[in-house]
Amino acid sequence: MSKTALQLRSLVNADNTLELSLQDVEIPEPGPDEIVVKMEAAPLNPSDLALLFGPADMTTARYSGTPERPVVTADIPAGLAKMVASRVGESLAVGNEGSGSVVAAGNSDAAKSLLGKRVGIVGGDMYSQYRCVNVFQALELQDGTSAAEGASCFVNPLTSLAMVETMRMEGHTALVHTAAASNLGQMLNRICKNEGVDLVNIVRKPEQEKILQDLGAKYIVNSSSDSYYEDLTKALVATGATLAFDATGGGKLASDILTCMEAAAVQTMTEYNRYGSDVFKQVYIYGGLDRQPTTLTRNFGFSWALGGFLLTPFLAKVGMEKGIAMRTKVAAELKTTFASHYTQEVSLAGALSKEAIDVYSKQATGEKYLIIPAV
Amino acid sequence: MSKTALQLRSLVNADNTLELSLQDVEIPEPGPDEIVVKMEAAPLNPSDLALLFGPADMTTARYSGTPERPVVTADIPAGLAKMVASRVGESLAVGNEGSGSVVAAGNSDAAKSLLGKRVGIVGGDMYSQYRCVNVFQALELQDGTSAAEGASCFVNPLTSLAMVETMRMEGHTALVHTAAASNLGQMLNRICKNEGVDLVNIVRKPEQEKILQDLGAKYIVNSSSDSYYEDLTKALVATGATLAFDATGGGKLASDILTCMEAAAVQTMTEYNRYGSDVFKQVYIYGGLDRQPTTLTRNFGFSWALGGFLLTPFLAKVGMEKGIAMRTKVAAELKTTFASHYTQEVSLAGALSKEAIDVYSKQATGEKYLIIPAV
Repeated sequence: MSKTALQLRSLVNADNTLELSLQDVEIPEPGPDEIVVKMEAAPLNPSDLALLFGPADMTTARYSGTPERPVVTADIPAGLAKMVASRVGESLAVGNEGSGSVVAAGNSDAAKSLLGKRVGIVGGDMYSQYRCVNVFQALELQDGTSAAEGASCFVNPLTSLAMVETMRMEGHTALVHTAAASNLGQMLNRICKNEGVDLVNIVRKPEQEKILQDLGAKYIVNSSSDSYYEDLTKALVATGATLAFDATGGGKLASDILTCMEAAAVQTMTEYNRYGSDVFKQVYIYGGLDRQPTTLTRNFGFSWALGGFLLTPFLAKVGMEKGIAMRTKVAAELKTTFASHYTQEVSLAGALSKEAIDVYSKQATGEKYLIIPAV
Repeated sequence: MSKTALQLRSLVNADNTLELSLQDVEIPEPGPDEIVVKMEAAPLNPSDLALLFGPADMTTARYSGTPERPVVTADIPAGLAKMVASRVGESLAVGNEGSGSVVAAGNSDAAKSLLGKRVGIVGGDMYSQYRCVNVFQALELQDGTSAAEGASCFVNPLTSLAMVETMRMEGHTALVHTAAASNLGQMLNRICKNEGVDLVNIVRKPEQEKILQDLGAKYIVNSSSDSYYEDLTKALVATGATLAFDATGGGKLASDILTCMEAAAVQTMTEYNRYGSDVFKQVYIYGGLDRQPTTLTRNFGFSWALGGFLLTPFLAKVGMEKGIAMRTKVAAELKTTFASHYTQEVSLAGALSKEAIDVYSKQATGEKYLIIPAV
C-alpha cells in the first residue's frame, strides 16, 4: 500500500471560519495490539456533525478546490465562536465509526487473528482511507457481512441497548423515545419488541409514523397532531413509562414529556399534593438535533430529573464484561435487530459536495449518508 | 380549653377564585401517640406560598369580612386554573411548621413525656391555634428556647443539612447556592463554615452581599454585576464546586451555573472534546421563587443533570437514624447555626391583611413573617 492516504479534516480558523478539506496523512505502522483497517464504509451520524461543522452556519458555505480535493469554507457566527476557541488552528479528523478490512496487524495474537478479516471499528477519525486502531476498538464481523452492514455497529446499536439497560438499572419499566423513526429508533423498537418492553415513540411526521407502524410499534405519538398531549398522556398511562431519551434536546419536548408523565401519574393519586406526584420522572438528552435552548415549564412537581446521556460514560459505568456482552449481541444480530439503512453513498470528496452538505447539515431530513472512503 | 379554635384556610372555588379565611375547627382529642400543641409561632416560608396562594394573582386581591374574620378573594388566571383542578371546593389548612406548648397528650410514654414542654412541630396545617400531631412530628426544644426561636426548626435547618449531606453522598466537594442570603442560605453558610466546606453564594443585591459578608462568607457572586460570569467561573475554579441548589427555578440561572461549571472544568482540560468535559455537573431546583420557565442553553457538554429536590424524599432515602441525628443537631444548635430571623410578627387575622399579603406575595423582598396564632 502507499505510504499516505486521504483523511477528511475539520479546521476552525482564527478568523471565525470553518474549513473542511481532504488531507494526506501517513498510514501508521501498527503497534503490537493494533490493526490497520482499509476503510470501506463510515456513516454520517448526527453525533458526527458537532465535530464536523462545529457551530458554523452551513448556509454560508463556499465551495472551492478541485473535484478530488474539495475545500468547504463556512462562517461561524461571532456569538458562537468561543464555543470552539480551543479548536482554533487544530485540524481535526472526523467520524465516530466505520467498517473495513484488516490489511496489517501487530504482533499480538489478538491483532494477528484479525488479519484479512472484515471488522467494525470505533474511536474517531473514521472518514479516512486507512485507520489504525487497538484491537479492542474492533468488532469482528460474521462471514457474509458487507461493509455497509457493518459500518454502524457501535454508536446506534450500543446506545439503543444502553437505553434499555439504563431503564432496568434505574428502576423504570418502559421507555419514551423522540425522533423515534431514526435508525437508532428502529433498533430500539426491535430490541423492545424482542424483550417485551413497552416503548412510546414520538415522531413529527406521518411518514415517520408509517416507518414505525411497519415495524409493528404499538405506541406512536405525533407531536404535530392536535391531540398530541392527550395521545402522549394516554400512551404514558398505558405503558407506565417514566424514562425518556430525547435526541433533539431543544425547545419544549423534554418539558412536554415530563408534563404528560406527571399528568399520567396524577391520574392515580387520591389527594392533592402541592409538590406534585412522588412518581420519579427522568428525561435524558442524548443528542442535539434541535439547537434551541431547552425550556422547562416545571409544571411537573419536584420529582424529576433531566440530564445528558452519552454512550462512553455509560460503558465505563457498566464495566468491560457487560460491554463485551453488548458487542457480542450486536455482532450476532447485525442483520436483524441492529440493521441500519442508508439512502446515499458518497466518496470522501463527495461528502464535501454542496449537494451532500446541503442535505445532512439540515439534520433529521430522513436522508442517511454512508461514506465509502475507498472510492 | 374551648372545643373549637381558629385555623387559616385556602380554598379554590369553581369560579376560578382563591378564597383565604379563618375557620372554626374542632380541637381533636389526642390518640395514644399524639400530642395537642397550642401554637405560639409559625413562619411564612416560600414553601408555604404555593399552597396558600396557588396560582392566584394576588394583585387582584379583594379584602372583606371583619377584622377578626377577614376574607381575601383573588382571581386565578384562566390558563393556570387546571393546575389546581383537584383542589376545587376543598378547603385546605396551610403552614408547614411551627412551635408551641404541649397542652394535652395521649397515653404513650413518649406523648406523656412532652406534656407541658415547648416543641417545634412539622406536618402541615400549622396556621392554627391548636394542632394535634404524632410525637414523631415534634422536636422537644431545649429549656430557654422561645417560640419564635423554635418556629422554624424543620424546613430550613433540615434542608440546609440535606444539601451538605447530598454533596457528600453524590461525590461532590463544594456547593453553590442561589438566593443565598435567605434564612436557609445563612444556615447553609454557618454549616459550611463549621465543616470546612466551600460554598459559592449567588445573590442579586448589594444588601444581600452585605448579609453574607457579615457572616464571613468567602465566595459571594452578584448576578446583577457586569462581571457575573467571570466572578462565578473564578469562584467555581477556586472551590471546585460541581453541585448547586437553586431556590429560584426559573429563567437562566441554572443554565448559567452549568455553563460556568463547564467553563471551570474546561480550564483543566488538555484537548478539545466535542462532547464537552467529562466533569459531572448537577443542579437541583428546590424552590420556585421565579415562576418563569427554566431555560437551558446546553453549552455545557453532556455530563450534567438538573432535577427537583425536596426534603421529604431525601429523608425517606437516608432513613430514620440519619434523620434523627439531623434533628438532634438542629435542637442543639437552634440559637446558633440554625437561628432564623423575622422582620414582622402578625396574628392569624393579620396574616390575611392587605399590608401583609402585599409584602409576602411578592417573594424575595427580604421581609420574613412570623404568625403568632394565639394573638
